[in-house]
Amino acid sequence: MKKNLVIFFLTTFLVSSSLADARQNDLLNLVEVLNDNGTITTMQYEELKDGLSANTPVQKDPEITDVQVSTKGGIEIATCDGQYAFELGGRLMVDAAFYDQDRNDHGNGTELSRVRIDIEGVLHGDWGYELGIDFADGGADIKDAYVSYDAFWPAKIQIGQFKEPFSLEALTNSKYITFMERALPHEFAPGRSIGVGARSHGDVWSAAAGLFGEAFDDDVKDEGDEGWGMTGRATFSPLHSETRVMHFGAAASFREPNDEKKVRFNQRPESHITDIKYLDTGKIDHTDRVMKYGLEAAGVFGPLSLQGEYISTNVSRDGGSEDCSFDGYYVYVSWFATGETRPYKEKKGGFGRIKPKSKNGALELAARYSMMDLNDGSITGGKEENSTFGVNWYINPHTRLMANYILVNNDKHADADGDLAGNDDPKIFQARFQIDF
Amino acid sequence: MKKNLVIFFLTTFLVSSSLADARQNDLLNLVEVLNDNGTITTMQYEELKDGLSANTPVQKDPEITDVQVSTKGGIEIATCDGQYAFELGGRLMVDAAFYDQDRNDHGNGTELSRVRIDIEGVLHGDWGYELGIDFADGGADIKDAYVSYDAFWPAKIQIGQFKEPFSLEALTNSKYITFMERALPHEFAPGRSIGVGARSHGDVWSAAAGLFGEAFDDDVKDEGDEGWGMTGRATFSPLHSETRVMHFGAAASFREPNDEKKVRFNQRPESHITDIKYLDTGKIDHTDRVMKYGLEAAGVFGPLSLQGEYISTNVSRDGGSEDCSFDGYYVYVSWFATGETRPYKEKKGGFGRIKPKSKNGALELAARYSMMDLNDGSITGGKEENSTFGVNWYINPHTRLMANYILVNNDKHADADGDLAGNDDPKIFQARFQIDF
Amino acid sequence: MKKNLVIFFLTTFLVSSSLADARQNDLLNLVEVLNDNGTITTMQYEELKDGLSANTPVQKDPEITDVQVSTKGGIEIATCDGQYAFELGGRLMVDAAFYDQDRNDHGNGTELSRVRIDIEGVLHGDWGYELGIDFADGGADIKDAYVSYDAFWPAKIQIGQFKEPFSLEALTNSKYITFMERALPHEFAPGRSIGVGARSHGDVWSAAAGLFGEAFDDDVKDEGDEGWGMTGRATFSPLHSETRVMHFGAAASFREPNDEKKVRFNQRPESHITDIKYLDTGKIDHTDRVMKYGLEAAGVFGPLSLQGEYISTNVSRDGGSEDCSFDGYYVYVSWFATGETRPYKEKKGGFGRIKPKSKNGALELAARYSMMDLNDGSITGGKEENSTFGVNWYINPHTRLMANYILVNNDKHADADGDLAGNDDPKIFQARFQIDF
Repeated sequence: MKKNLVIFFLTTFLVSSSLADARQNDLLNLVEVLNDNGTITTMQYEELKDGLSANTPVQKDPEITDVQVSTKGGIEIATCDGQYAFELGGRLMVDAAFYDQDRNDHGNGTELSRVRIDIEGVLHGDWGYELGIDFADGGADIKDAYVSYDAFWPAKIQIGQFKEPFSLEALTNSKYITFMERALPHEFAPGRSIGVGARSHGDVWSAAAGLFGEAFDDDVKDEGDEGWGMTGRATFSPLHSETRVMHFGAAASFREPNDEKKVRFNQRPESHITDIKYLDTGKIDHTDRVMKYGLEAAGVFGPLSLQGEYISTNVSRDGGSEDCSFDGYYVYVSWFATGETRPYKEKKGGFGRIKPKSKNGALELAARYSMMDLNDGSITGGKEENSTFGVNWYINPHTRLMANYILVNNDKHADADGDLAGNDDPKIFQARFQIDF
Repeated sequence: MKKNLVIFFLTTFLVSSSLADARQNDLLNLVEVLNDNGTITTMQYEELKDGLSANTPVQKDPEITDVQVSTKGGIEIATCDGQYAFELGGRLMVDAAFYDQDRNDHGNGTELSRVRIDIEGVLHGDWGYELGIDFADGGADIKDAYVSYDAFWPAKIQIGQFKEPFSLEALTNSKYITFMERALPHEFAPGRSIGVGARSHGDVWSAAAGLFGEAFDDDVKDEGDEGWGMTGRATFSPLHSETRVMHFGAAASFREPNDEKKVRFNQRPESHITDIKYLDTGKIDHTDRVMKYGLEAAGVFGPLSLQGEYISTNVSRDGGSEDCSFDGYYVYVSWFATGETRPYKEKKGGFGRIKPKSKNGALELAARYSMMDLNDGSITGGKEENSTFGVNWYINPHTRLMANYILVNNDKHADADGDLAGNDDPKIFQARFQIDF
Repeated sequence: MKKNLVIFFLTTFLVSSSLADARQNDLLNLVEVLNDNGTITTMQYEELKDGLSANTPVQKDPEITDVQVSTKGGIEIATCDGQYAFELGGRLMVDAAFYDQDRNDHGNGTELSRVRIDIEGVLHGDWGYELGIDFADGGADIKDAYVSYDAFWPAKIQIGQFKEPFSLEALTNSKYITFMERALPHEFAPGRSIGVGARSHGDVWSAAAGLFGEAFDDDVKDEGDEGWGMTGRATFSPLHSETRVMHFGAAASFREPNDEKKVRFNQRPESHITDIKYLDTGKIDHTDRVMKYGLEAAGVFGPLSLQGEYISTNVSRDGGSEDCSFDGYYVYVSWFATGETRPYKEKKGGFGRIKPKSKNGALELAARYSMMDLNDGSITGGKEENSTFGVNWYINPHTRLMANYILVNNDKHADADGDLAGNDDPKIFQARFQIDF
């Protein structure tokens, strides 16, 4: 016996109640006509009319609230009064990479790069939460895990683990990024930490700031305090119509590391199946504090869009060690051969989901140049310049096939902190199939 | 295209069918009046009346069962016949702690203390399951994972991993405990193990007992058998009205350790962000069996409540090693400034969710004294006495802000099994923000 | 305040709209009668009639789609147009094992052998996904994680991690296997890998093939490429009625290992609580490629069924090392004392869920003989022959109690690659309680 249910939509109610009202009027008309004609007596008329008006609709129990249930591959439920909601979705990304090696060995192979479950909800109207867990490594990596409060107008408060507000590309959901991996300077972005933040926005601006400890998995041993930081970002979009966007942003982040006083910057060559990180400063000791600055700009002109960021990182050291400073940037251009436009989300100052115009999906061509320089003074973490060419086929709004070809250009210091040969210039072909629900 | 659905409540049915019935009567009345008046002929009257009675409602397909769907931030679905149900919820707790250090270093910091997904359901009426997984450590820690059977009257049977029935505070859900961490003697409570149990209850009593192996992650190497144990608990509540509760309980637990024959007791200072466990017996070898006894009492008098427990643990050793015995207790008082009452669940012999009376939430003040003594004969695990002061703000039934201030008083043996300085008396301030759905 | 909803079935719509239509006709009849009688004037008649016909039913918004929601212990939602669906279920298996030891020590104990959450869904009609994660080890082990595409007629395409199509027993869901553990030669089956596959089927046949990398957790270090393989299977079922099935199948699998060029075959004695793997070749180096061949047959004759498989594995080695070849097989018979029949799924060439005929459930008796031989030339991995007797009580379609008694017969080489005494012949009793939802 199948326990099942076919639910029907509000037309049920509309049809039945509007018809009922209509019928009520029909009858009343008829009864009045009969009375006018003298066909029925006044007493009969009154009786009939009273009978009609007694049939008032049954009142709905105010304790019981209507809900909406829907699916776009996941599940969503919300009460119609907006007080409670729940949504479960996820994403699955399957990657393969082939390395045209130069001086060091990479391993061709396959990978599940993201196997993510995302839950979010609303409670008591003003409270929300978001919880994302990634299983791709065979463990369970907590991504977003925060509570938000909306009624402290005009700001939205967040408590828990979430992305520090820094870098347009870092803040763009991995489901929507234009290339398979974010650009080299993404290593400088602070990522997710546990903390408290606030965000607000107007018509042409957004701002977010927060006070943060470390991420859930960065706990230092007992002996020392955790590091902490403050990060803020502001964006300005003087123009954002459906097909035209101009976006500018700036961000700054201060961080004091934990009592070990060490920081390390290292980065893969925009390819995740290899574990090689050419760029690697090693652990920089005597680190007193780290300041980061980011500048971002983006423009959308119908199917064409441009985006770029520059990030500078300054490490202040004590104990006689010299300060050091690193930076990186990227610029890219994307063009939809099928005419779609990258959708701008002015509230967050970022980009969202592509919805193909055609049944055959959307086709996007893109090219990116990125640079990251980890050489400064006695720190020789290496310098890398990558040129990437990408094709994305958005088969439908939830399914995407991506292919990237990357030309890597390393300097002699880009030797994985001494473990590899420098001046290695491999070429990488990688592809991804992704679905989200 | 948004695949969506607005579901309307049974008023739809009631409105339409009651109006329909009403309308049917209206028409019948009218038709009879017309017939009485001689306006219509008897034949016409009969025809009209037949036409009306022919409109019988469509019968519902008995194979198809109605379901209830709802959300309070998570999702719940149940068939109206009670045979099947499913519920998905979770909890998120974000902590921060600051240590006013004395002789040893702790690390201030933040933590996601619980990131939990809970699933439960009902199958074929009498069968149920519960499954809880905690991701807070970056792994996936199985909490409850059991099947239950209700129809073996008067007891409920449980198979799988669940909490051994021991200690009022241990059995109280972490969502509902009064202080951020359970009291020191919680270390003695057996916690969750894989086994078979039964529980039953009357109006003024509850009882539970079980036979257990070890928890899913306590597997010993191949060479040796797992440990096993038996645990039972009985509670008595001669009085439990909405605002008055008297609760008494007693529990006992026997355990034979695995073939390594070792047990260890150690405990943090009621604060989880530090990893320091002052109290630590080290591994006690030649352990033949462990017996634990617990006594518990609680009283609720409107907004005021008292709760206390005493637990004694006796380690029987062979091979000429002397037996040893440890114990601990706690007492606490809680008062709701806003007038709420801690809700007693007589079936389980424990406490449940606080629901604020006011829009501004509920405010609870609480104080606890706890003691744990791991010194006996040649075992010098240390003795600790903590005084804790707590404030809880229940913003709404699902959101709570907690703050605890703990005065720690260690003796000279409370030195983390020799790793730290003894007689350390730090003060701890910690806060938690929690949401459950 | 309980946010809740009772959803009523389409009778709501049918009742109200059919009654409404009926009422419309009733009124029209009445009005016409009144006109015929001359009780009302022609003008009045026309007015009334116009009023009636103006009440056309409200059109349903074509953007809004009806959904079905149901539960059988988990949750299912689907749009009525079949374009979108989501399902969340799971399984929980609780095991205990007792070892009647012979020459080596095993550890009696308990285990959660499977704690699995399974999600699957449909997007945009033709696209589907499946995602299964097992938490039983305290980690998060990704099982199925793939996307499928159905509209590339006549084949179904799969991308991601899924079972390579090889071996009837390997492809049978763990919820439905006849014994607690699959037979010894299951070690030869390739299991789940990341890759691309296609499957198709006719009325009496099914076929599946794929190109695979390695599983998500088998990544080799950077220096070397991943292994890769190709696997295909075809099945033939000239007869499959509800109570009679004849099934034949053959499969082949090629694999080139990763750059370490090593393979290892080892296997537990059809019992999972022990970690002892008597059979163990150790790492076989200089492995150039591995070819596997499988033959399978099954027959169902009402409550009686027979099943057997033979798998041969051939390791080609270079560098002067000699090739080696191993094999294994099993045969089993199962009989339902309560008259049920094992259900055949011709599309997949495999077996599915047992649904008890009686309220008291179904009782199955089964016996299996299995053999695996890992001795060849200089490789002495051992040979094992097991006889297993099993009883399964299917309490309801989602709950099963299993008990297995295994007589193990090892040869002198079955010594866990030298770690244990050979010629060990223990007896094993193990039981499982399982629920799925």
